[in-house]
Amino acid sequence: VASRRAGIVGTGLIGGSIGLALRRAGWHVTGTDGDPARAARALEVGALDEVGTDPEAQITFVATPVRAVAGAAREALDLVAGHGGVVTDVGSVKASVVDAVDHPRFVGGHPMAGSEQEGVDGADPELFEGAVWVLTPTAGTDDAAFTLVRTVVSSLGADVVALSPEHHDALVAVVSHVPHLAAATLMGLADDRAVEHRALLRLAAGGFRDMTRIAAGHPGIWPDICAENRQAITDTLDGLLDALSRMRAVVAAGDREALLEVLERARAARTNLPARAVVPADLVELRIPVPDRPGVLAEVTTLAGQLAVNIADLEIAHSSEGQGGVLILLVEAADAERFRTGLAGRGYRSAARPLENP
Amino acid sequence: VASRRAGIVGTGLIGGSIGLALRRAGWHVTGTDGDPARAARALEVGALDEVGTDPEAQITFVATPVRAVAGAAREALDLVAGHGGVVTDVGSVKASVVDAVDHPRFVGGHPMAGSEQEGVDGADPELFEGAVWVLTPTAGTDDAAFTLVRTVVSSLGADVVALSPEHHDALVAVVSHVPHLAAATLMGLADDRAVEHRALLRLAAGGFRDMTRIAAGHPGIWPDICAENRQAITDTLDGLLDALSRMRAVVAAGDREALLEVLERARAARTNLPARAVVPADLVELRIPVPDRPGVLAEVTTLAGQLAVNIADLEIAHSSEGQGGVLILLVEAADAERFRTGLAGRGYRSAARPLENP
Repeated sequence: VASRRAGIVGTGLIGGSIGLALRRAGWHVTGTDGDPARAARALEVGALDEVGTDPEAQITFVATPVRAVAGAAREALDLVAGHGGVVTDVGSVKASVVDAVDHPRFVGGHPMAGSEQEGVDGADPELFEGAVWVLTPTAGTDDAAFTLVRTVVSSLGADVVALSPEHHDALVAVVSHVPHLAAATLMGLADDRAVEHRALLRLAAGGFRDMTRIAAGHPGIWPDICAENRQAITDTLDGLLDALSRMRAVVAAGDREALLEVLERARAARTNLPARAVVPADLVELRIPVPDRPGVLAEVTTLAGQLAVNIADLEIAHSSEGQGGVLILLVEAADAERFRTGLAGRGYRSAARPLENP
Repeated sequence: VASRRAGIVGTGLIGGSIGLALRRAGWHVTGTDGDPARAARALEVGALDEVGTDPEAQITFVATPVRAVAGAAREALDLVAGHGGVVTDVGSVKASVVDAVDHPRFVGGHPMAGSEQEGVDGADPELFEGAVWVLTPTAGTDDAAFTLVRTVVSSLGADVVALSPEHHDALVAVVSHVPHLAAATLMGLADDRAVEHRALLRLAAGGFRDMTRIAAGHPGIWPDICAENRQAITDTLDGLLDALSRMRAVVAAGDREALLEVLERARAARTNLPARAVVPADLVELRIPVPDRPGVLAEVTTLAGQLAVNIADLEIAHSSEGQGGVLILLVEAADAERFRTGLAGRGYRSAARPLENP
């Protein structure tokens, strides 16, 4: 078996966890960090085989702070693209990074996993098991580059969802960025009141603790995130401010029915929130003849992401005549018809075949 | 040992948990519920010795929905006060209830404990272990009634904090009521956006799940709570709206320093949030000569609550000459000077004696 080689730029919690997971799967991992002491520590804890750069790396993960991703990704591409290597990143904001890098062998990525730990000492090779990992291919992304990143990320146990960079940014503003800012705001409000009312924080029970837990995280990453995703975050904050004002009006008016309706809806939505670990359902194989032009794979996979269709596996069978090929996807049976309708709307024919659930 | 007798009105999750805990401690527990089937079920699961009312009950817990507390408490007082019994409740709002009942043998209460379970089948005798249980004595509260409720509630494992009813309501608006409404609002906002963006909820990771967990609770109790505590809730929602608007302005302006400052402060506050189980520290015994007039115990204990002074134990030694008495409190050594200063400000002299930590 030829050695598989990977690179990591930025050996913190996420970079370190990727290193541990890849090494456990037999990859040779080379990495660097802006702070040489952090790279040395990553070597020490077994997240790297060696400190440095590897021009032969088939895949390089850029896991620096968001602000530094584009520069680091371009440097990595200069090093590895000539040898066929691909580069991906793990930043929390995608559109600005993908625009700035703009290279067929770069695939934006964002694992939706974290930990209260910090740095490589908190790294965990199982951090990505069952977590959603967003990839953001575009019309300019090389198909082989995307499939390689997808395969490697899946092998770490993650559940890959492809989305356009802009769509990713709009969604994480709602489920990650604004919740974080709201948790910090709520904690700050309670802390303000606690100055006058010392007993206040003693009364903080489970619900309050749950709601403010993420506010205990390290603030260092947030100025970058807020700068790079400013528009989506302010839009979502406006939506939250509107919704809270409506809630205030309902309470002030003593409107019991309206209050119950809002709370019942929230309860139903929370109860239906998809669990982290999805039980594999019956799968359907879709075969989609695709033309041989760039962007097809990005279009099909981000359509699946947008429609919340889970792609369990993906393969491209190139036609022997060289005229396009066939894209073979495994999707959940419950999603298959919705997805086929969406595909038809974009001009893709598809053939479906149910698979036995193992 | 003479049998200790308790009554419970309302045998849901909280009433049932109190019943289980009291029976385990050897009490004879009699109870009713507006729904006879619920009372029968409480008997079946061992939360009651018998269904019905007990005029001999030394303590009766009213654990009905908030709206029904005042009426049920008055009924219970009619039954037991003539025999020296005391009545307390467990409702989430206190000022309106305490005003409406207005009886020296009624002590408002609120255990800050709950569960995602519902009804007596979710009852747990250990629900109150380490939880804060607020009591709201007033100038009209009988000292013996307050000390009895305090002793019984402490025996269930709870950490008693005395506060004035109004102070309680202002504080729970901040740490409980508004957080609940905010969680439901955030969940509703995400659910709105998920209509258009089906992938959205797949991206909801740990932080979002934590923040919205309480929104999965049963909405039925909230119209009452919002009606009874309307002023404090709308005030707190106004505070939250202001703080979120400031957060929005900081993000829109790209003001990195201001953002870091808000997040650093929230982080420090969250990290310092008192843990549920407080390790007993060195204790100091305070002896406070008190005049023989009503309201002294309420004044001293709610002052402690307000100053976040933990009263580990409390005893009243009546002077043999009948001229007032001595209030003996055990408080944490770290709090003793702060408390003594506060007491002096209200005209109470106190003598302090350090105790050995067992």
